[in-house]
Amino acid sequence: MRSHYCGQLNETLVDQQVTLCGWVHRRRDHGGVIFLDLRDRDGLAQVVVDPDTAEAFATADRARNEFVLRITGRVRPRPEGTQNPNMPTGMIEVLAKDVEVLNTAATPPFQLDEHGKVGEETRLKYRYIDLRRPEMIDKLRLRSRISHSVRAFLEGQGFLDIETPILTRATPEGARDYLVPSRTHAGSFFALPQSPQLFKQLLMVSGVDRYYQIAKCFRDEDLRADRQPEFTQIDIEASFVEEDDVMAITETMIRQLFQEVLDVELPLFPRMPYAEAMSRFGSDKPDLRIPLELTDVDDLMKDVDFKVFSGPAQAEDGRVAALKVPGGAKLSRKEIDEYTKFVGIYGARGLAWIKVNERAKGIEGLQSPIVKFMDGIIEELLDRVEAQDGDIIFFGADNARIVNEAIGALRVKLGEDLELYTREWAPLWVVDFPMFEEDGNGRMQALHHPFTAPSCDVDTLRDRPAEALSKAYDMVLNGTELGGGSIRIHDHGMQRAVLDVLGIGEEEADEKFGFLLDALQYGAPPHGGLAFGLDRLVMLMTGAKTIREVIAFPKTQSAACLMTDAPGVVSPTQLKELNIRLRQKAKPEAEQDA
Amino acid sequence: MRSHYCGQLNETLVDQQVTLCGWVHRRRDHGGVIFLDLRDRDGLAQVVVDPDTAEAFATADRARNEFVLRITGRVRPRPEGTQNPNMPTGMIEVLAKDVEVLNTAATPPFQLDEHGKVGEETRLKYRYIDLRRPEMIDKLRLRSRISHSVRAFLEGQGFLDIETPILTRATPEGARDYLVPSRTHAGSFFALPQSPQLFKQLLMVSGVDRYYQIAKCFRDEDLRADRQPEFTQIDIEASFVEEDDVMAITETMIRQLFQEVLDVELPLFPRMPYAEAMSRFGSDKPDLRIPLELTDVDDLMKDVDFKVFSGPAQAEDGRVAALKVPGGAKLSRKEIDEYTKFVGIYGARGLAWIKVNERAKGIEGLQSPIVKFMDGIIEELLDRVEAQDGDIIFFGADNARIVNEAIGALRVKLGEDLELYTREWAPLWVVDFPMFEEDGNGRMQALHHPFTAPSCDVDTLRDRPAEALSKAYDMVLNGTELGGGSIRIHDHGMQRAVLDVLGIGEEEADEKFGFLLDALQYGAPPHGGLAFGLDRLVMLMTGAKTIREVIAFPKTQSAACLMTDAPGVVSPTQLKELNIRLRQKAKPEAEQDA
Repeated sequence: MRSHYCGQLNETLVDQQVTLCGWVHRRRDHGGVIFLDLRDRDGLAQVVVDPDTAEAFATADRARNEFVLRITGRVRPRPEGTQNPNMPTGMIEVLAKDVEVLNTAATPPFQLDEHGKVGEETRLKYRYIDLRRPEMIDKLRLRSRISHSVRAFLEGQGFLDIETPILTRATPEGARDYLVPSRTHAGSFFALPQSPQLFKQLLMVSGVDRYYQIAKCFRDEDLRADRQPEFTQIDIEASFVEEDDVMAITETMIRQLFQEVLDVELPLFPRMPYAEAMSRFGSDKPDLRIPLELTDVDDLMKDVDFKVFSGPAQAEDGRVAALKVPGGAKLSRKEIDEYTKFVGIYGARGLAWIKVNERAKGIEGLQSPIVKFMDGIIEELLDRVEAQDGDIIFFGADNARIVNEAIGALRVKLGEDLELYTREWAPLWVVDFPMFEEDGNGRMQALHHPFTAPSCDVDTLRDRPAEALSKAYDMVLNGTELGGGSIRIHDHGMQRAVLDVLGIGEEEADEKFGFLLDALQYGAPPHGGLAFGLDRLVMLMTGAKTIREVIAFPKTQSAACLMTDAPGVVSPTQLKELNIRLRQKAKPEAEQDA
Repeated sequence: MRSHYCGQLNETLVDQQVTLCGWVHRRRDHGGVIFLDLRDRDGLAQVVVDPDTAEAFATADRARNEFVLRITGRVRPRPEGTQNPNMPTGMIEVLAKDVEVLNTAATPPFQLDEHGKVGEETRLKYRYIDLRRPEMIDKLRLRSRISHSVRAFLEGQGFLDIETPILTRATPEGARDYLVPSRTHAGSFFALPQSPQLFKQLLMVSGVDRYYQIAKCFRDEDLRADRQPEFTQIDIEASFVEEDDVMAITETMIRQLFQEVLDVELPLFPRMPYAEAMSRFGSDKPDLRIPLELTDVDDLMKDVDFKVFSGPAQAEDGRVAALKVPGGAKLSRKEIDEYTKFVGIYGARGLAWIKVNERAKGIEGLQSPIVKFMDGIIEELLDRVEAQDGDIIFFGADNARIVNEAIGALRVKLGEDLELYTREWAPLWVVDFPMFEEDGNGRMQALHHPFTAPSCDVDTLRDRPAEALSKAYDMVLNGTELGGGSIRIHDHGMQRAVLDVLGIGEEEADEKFGFLLDALQYGAPPHGGLAFGLDRLVMLMTGAKTIREVIAFPKTQSAACLMTDAPGVVSPTQLKELNIRLRQKAKPEAEQDA
């Protein structure tokens, strides 16, 4: 139907006849002539319809915004003074010979140019119109290129693309499962997979050797954060590998991806142990673009006459950390109050600070509500954080978790507010994670998942689980976890030991994933892998602000699709076939997303 | 961990040191030496462990079938007389220096070589072992290559890979939906998509222009045939296209796929109208490898003194068709009885036949229970089917649907039984389908789906719906429908008209897919597409006998996974969160798949 996409037109086509198909993006009447900006996936082209071509003119005269047209005409240079160098096709225009209306369009619920004026709800309801915006189509296109680049790389490395089931059994990732009632097995339910974890391990037991899949995963969680009930994972697993093998291959993949799709040369990824990341940045996914670090000052604060500091400094699980911000002495009292509120979100009960106005003047040159308690240690403190005139030093003092979360978050916020970024892309590997973390009740939880291999032997694991490190690795970019993975346990005895530490007895384990435990007994090779969150990767690479921008048909925070009105009511017959009944009737739809 | 895959070893590596990882496929002790066939994804390599390397020998001596080993050694030519030219690595062997047990293996529930001795149930329960069989891994590998080839082609043609939702609203394909109770919208349900049909149309309305996806689809049907509750579709849609465009691009794709993956040069695909396919082959997916055709003989049979023939010949919806089988006169009475039973499956009440023993002898040369009724027309009949000595002619006489199904199926069965195939691959396009077919109750049903565009205008469609043809096309290969598609309706008025004919009123339509009807009003471009069944395509290309062979983790006919025991019982708390309760308790698992 067409000879060219609108965005493909350029000066080399001058005097040639072209046929374009697309949407009326804008229409202007000027000096008795109709100007149409015709839009398709590739861009805009200016079409001129002259009254001399009476039939075309009459048709164009009927055309309104978002009409679908087919236009044949001749490419010509735009007249002197009307060129638009900001537009890829801005040096030329098409003088129309034929104009055909392929479809009309009712006045859309919002004009593309004015999408900002309507709420996100309207845009989600009319998603098919919102996606017409060039920046939205461009994100979908980039996502497609990203998937393709990843696939091409992995295929080239001998990974087989293998599909794993969507209708499956509850998986042990720990989030809530979406369930699907079985009609043929009354009273039983499938679960939608939280990840293909167990299946990919079984594929390794099968000898597949190298597996990948761009896989849909599902978690029925409350979507406070920027999450979606269904999300996409680049899922990778290989046999006869160690940490370095998986990290090398996936780092190469991501660096090549950035090269191919964004023309960005990422640096080699540094590696940082979990303990160091927590100590220096208060986070296991530090944003290394920000040149601020936490400094431990517990030893200095143990004996100060200020309980807020000395208490945590002496406590076993306490931490007192300083965060020096160069140039921060210029922060106003009001700004400091805002930051105090901010760290409160993470449980911090206050935010102590010292402004370094003139260090040469000693204590006189400092400004701070707490400096009076620092007698005798102040010089050592200033030396340790390398304080200079104009700096501010913030302090966190509490149990280590709160300090890390609060001051870690403050670090990122200050980095953003004060525009301290030193570079555009800052990737790293975080390694040497603990195997377990204690939950509030003194029970051990897997920091990754129960199939992650420890770096120690079975005896050490059983005797001193809190000290055990795992063979896990997270890839972090700009403070976002792009992906995580590990070497898995391939030894049946070790798997039982880890489950024991987690308080998962044999019976429960056999019930939940006995098939995996069985499989480990029939010749499981050493294996490991990694999974990337594709949505988040695309979000970072496109600079999107929410994950919803990089998903064609996303759901709201209450897990609804405003366009299709899903979820919806179903008939009593359907429920009966599925052997279920409702506890309470569905609310009328209008109330659901209020 | 390894230097080579087992299957990669060859004579160019002689005298080099290699490290292999894999499974003990077979072990033989011969003349004090241990021979291990080590297996990995790529093949087998023979490893020789000599008592001279004491440590390696002791380790190898412990190794049993399916142990996972890492072996380092030197490649050497096999001694004269022990080469195995049937094995890719049969000219060499590895003399082991080091043997390391990476994992032990319990005696597997079946030996790979003896998989035929256990039932499919056992193999499905231990799928991870069954997949170790080289022919199984090869199928997965071919499937991966097929997906990759298809993707590469479509990317090259400017199609964007876009993911559509799995948690969505019931779609109007007509099969039963899998439902997912919503926790956040109590009493409401998501449906798993039967296809991405509506979403891909909406993407066209969005201006995506060219979309594809290798998409999971779900149908909660009784799995009599070789089907799976979840299956995979190569889903394609494009804007500003007509039938020829979609057919050209997808035909090129399939031909290129066969070239790349199987090194098979498919012929150009002939096109055949639906009416012709039904008339000549009794099927809308004729297997053109079989050189048998149905011949209409209604006109000859109208006045014969044999009600079984004259009745259908005179009835408006009747059909009398002859199927001539060259060389079929040699069929025994017992064989003919079997075929009579066979056509009975399709509702045929009998199977009349004429053996042509010696045509020159006239009626004397024929053998048949019905020839006595054919007085006066027998010569014309024999001429029409071009009968020769040694042929048999079968007859179907009933309403056209039964004749087509019964004699169409008989044609295929005879083709198989008598090995009449004339070539390996016989693709074609079937086109010019009717828009509608009448169901038993005089109501119109969509032959494809309600979004298929008719070739006629609105008035003709409303006035004479039974005559309306559609812009649909099916790709058929060897009697299997590989894929089907159509140009879709992009005009709101036409869509309403089609729904009217189908008896779907405005209210029902708005309730079910109002968002699509809305979208058609906001500037929908002409568009169309096609969807291929990937599982079936892979099955044909790998020569697999069931669809379960080309799916990594398939389900049984009762929609259960024997490996993970899915579906399973869930806790009362989970049900409560989902606002549902059971009508009856789940049966104990043992009973479920009995």
